[in-house]
Amino acid sequence: MDPDTVAKAFVEHYYSTFDTNRAGLVGLYQDGSMLTFEGQKIQGAQNIAAKLTSLPFEQCKHSITTVDCQPSGPAGGMVVFVSGNLQLAGEQHPLKFSQVMFHLMPTQGSFFVFNDIFRLNYA
Amino acid sequence: MDPDTVAKAFVEHYYSTFDTNRAGLVGLYQDGSMLTFEGQKIQGAQNIAAKLTSLPFEQCKHSITTVDCQPSGPAGGMVVFVSGNLQLAGEQHPLKFSQVMFHLMPTQGSFFVFNDIFRLNYA
Repeated sequence: MDPDTVAKAFVEHYYSTFDTNRAGLVGLYQDGSMLTFEGQKIQGAQNIAAKLTSLPFEQCKHSITTVDCQPSGPAGGMVVFVSGNLQLAGEQHPLKFSQVMFHLMPTQGSFFVFNDIFRLNYA
Repeated sequence: MDPDTVAKAFVEHYYSTFDTNRAGLVGLYQDGSMLTFEGQKIQGAQNIAAKLTSLPFEQCKHSITTVDCQPSGPAGGMVVFVSGNLQLAGEQHPLKFSQVMFHLMPTQGSFFVFNDIFRLNYA
């Protein structure tokens, strides 16, 4: 399958999980996975899921604006850059232009998130 | 040296080169390097440098807002996420929140850019 199609499908699956079953994100990371969330560094699937499920909002809806993808080297991974909006329940305006950099690595016919860097853009 | 320090030094060197000697960027890429520039895919150091030197502005000044860095796996690379402003000569306001994802790979005691994804944020 075309890498762009794979990347887009992964990103859609990731945010669908985030918006409907956030604790399920733990299955998309592994022990060596890293998350840098607004400058805070977190390692390991359990710690990353604990961070993402403890964010100070319950309901949210991600809308993806752009997905860019490139193969990342001989190991079969790919780097993916995502921008979009994050709508929180009870907030009138979405948080604009959140950005995520994912480095996906292959695992048993699928991918897991090895690197994850998140930044909000305060316009 | 601390990876964050290496990443920050690389990013400062990259934008200093971009702002003062753009053609010199060719030395920071290799033949397998990839650039996705606002969705356009370009491969190879020569083609990437040709794209960056043909952008429709002569003078520019990058200001870095954030640099996030993580090791990218056993090959000794690192993923780097940069956000910042781009001031063009003759424009009153900077273009805000341009973002770049770099995947740096080691080469002879230094690094080159293997993956490069650029997006402007239109606020």
